[in-house]
Amino acid sequence: MIKVAVDATGGDLGSAPVLAGVRGALKADPDLYVNLYCDKSSHRDASLNSNFSRSLKSRLELHLCSDSVEMDEKPIQALRTKSSSSMALAIQSVKENKNDAILSSGNTAALVGFGLQLLGTIEGVSRPAICTALPSSKGRTWFLDMGANLEPTAEQMLVNARMGASQCRLIDGIQSPRVGVLNVGSEMMKGTRKEQELAAQLIKEPNMNFVGFAEGADLFSGAFDLVVCDGFAGNVALKTAEGVAEFLTDELKTTLSRHWAARFCYLLLRHDLRDMRRRIDPARYNGAALLGLDGLVVKSHGASKTVGFQNALLLTAELVRLGALPYLKGEILS
Amino acid sequence: MIKVAVDATGGDLGSAPVLAGVRGALKADPDLYVNLYCDKSSHRDASLNSNFSRSLKSRLELHLCSDSVEMDEKPIQALRTKSSSSMALAIQSVKENKNDAILSSGNTAALVGFGLQLLGTIEGVSRPAICTALPSSKGRTWFLDMGANLEPTAEQMLVNARMGASQCRLIDGIQSPRVGVLNVGSEMMKGTRKEQELAAQLIKEPNMNFVGFAEGADLFSGAFDLVVCDGFAGNVALKTAEGVAEFLTDELKTTLSRHWAARFCYLLLRHDLRDMRRRIDPARYNGAALLGLDGLVVKSHGASKTVGFQNALLLTAELVRLGALPYLKGEILS
Repeated sequence: MIKVAVDATGGDLGSAPVLAGVRGALKADPDLYVNLYCDKSSHRDASLNSNFSRSLKSRLELHLCSDSVEMDEKPIQALRTKSSSSMALAIQSVKENKNDAILSSGNTAALVGFGLQLLGTIEGVSRPAICTALPSSKGRTWFLDMGANLEPTAEQMLVNARMGASQCRLIDGIQSPRVGVLNVGSEMMKGTRKEQELAAQLIKEPNMNFVGFAEGADLFSGAFDLVVCDGFAGNVALKTAEGVAEFLTDELKTTLSRHWAARFCYLLLRHDLRDMRRRIDPARYNGAALLGLDGLVVKSHGASKTVGFQNALLLTAELVRLGALPYLKGEILS
Repeated sequence: MIKVAVDATGGDLGSAPVLAGVRGALKADPDLYVNLYCDKSSHRDASLNSNFSRSLKSRLELHLCSDSVEMDEKPIQALRTKSSSSMALAIQSVKENKNDAILSSGNTAALVGFGLQLLGTIEGVSRPAICTALPSSKGRTWFLDMGANLEPTAEQMLVNARMGASQCRLIDGIQSPRVGVLNVGSEMMKGTRKEQELAAQLIKEPNMNFVGFAEGADLFSGAFDLVVCDGFAGNVALKTAEGVAEFLTDELKTTLSRHWAARFCYLLLRHDLRDMRRRIDPARYNGAALLGLDGLVVKSHGASKTVGFQNALLLTAELVRLGALPYLKGEILS
């Protein structure tokens, strides 16, 4: 049995998509057991009773908490005053081995802060990094950091590259992942001193297949298995990608509803378009591990809907099943 | 008559799209006169003779240069050794008032470097910023810096905000543009000290409609008229957007060629799809001004094709026509 602590409060859309996502994941993965940490005030017993069948409820336990971390709360404030929030208690339960992992779509900085405070980092890592996957024309590209450490040192980014490469080996079975460093150009003299220092270190690193600098477009070109960058640029790139995808999808929708022929085509192609949408949907790859913490912590997108949250929960269970944490520890120390 | 110096060498695709773009722009704008600076070795007289009609040639002058700046050349190296390159001579011609503006698709860092060396900055500006427009669902959003200054100070970014706002007023006629600062979240406590400092200064700035922090997705949401960021994040965001757009366009092409019904729909909708493509095409907004230099310097995308280069050249002529440089000087000093 795989036990996952789910922080049901926080997230931009409230607890409804979380609950629906938990239900979907429990149905899809019979090994999964969910401990749901929920703020008393936001909890509606009714939704839990009506939405979960008796058999699903046997693998679901509700833990009411007296507080929750707000999305716009300063992390330092949250760390001081929200030790009985759903987020803190869910992480604490992993520390106490009551759960194998914790999943939250709440305040990222607070999640990183509580993770550091309650779980600490594994040996060889000073700060965690948020690692996610992006769809590409040839599979997927892993990408870190998405915002755990906005201004890392080159040394911390080197550790991030090691952790990301370990993720590629474990999850995608790529023994020698092609690693790139995000930069303003592919030419080796480009970038700031940080990118230059990191590249020099990656070239010397044993067992590291450093291909060179990657540009923004390379996140989707399939030319790299892993792209490393600081948390600021990573967050900007990810959210820019989501923005473009939404803008283009809206434009396509408008185009396919403009006149009768367009609407006819839309009907004719709706299955193909749905397939395409599924292929490119960021929610498909929702769930980003906070690599480097001494405990499995996964962040779901703040705006994730039911399917997105469900995928993040299934990924969390899969990471437990694969033994992601002991594997990472072994790789970093080797 | 508007005289523009065009650097025909450099660029990722050689001089062919530059020549074709120049021809298109000369046809479209009868006031335009082009001085073409071209590396001897890459120049093929034949293409010039065969592609330009006699009447167009009367508004085109060829200047053969002994050298050119390579795309992967270190800017400091270029500044020392390439003073007779097509790029340097084209910029020099603006300094000497032989041309009203200069357009290049070559090495960005070298263009910034030669611009600083040969033209200097206007009063009140220490470093230039590259400013471009992105399509949004409600018009367009101006965005700077795209990579002229990878690690600006908050003070330099404040000046960039002033210059960008001036661009919105001049070109789009928006008297009080909604200004945002790119960050990892919209909440006011987000980001690094730089974003915090900049926001504090923008709030105090008179005649500045500072709306708050923008996220990557806001570049396309239409919620801002201008988004300010450092050159590293700006370059990453722009290239990420291009990468996603290309990836999605490819996926759509694949979907619309999969079976006979899909191909039939493609035929039926080809005009609508072409319209859509034109609406979202980054080439439509090609041409980014290097604001802050004491001369009009415009950068065309390194990979721009004919239409992209043509648009950049027409934009350059339009900036001359609007008196962009004296307008900017007046705004910065007021």
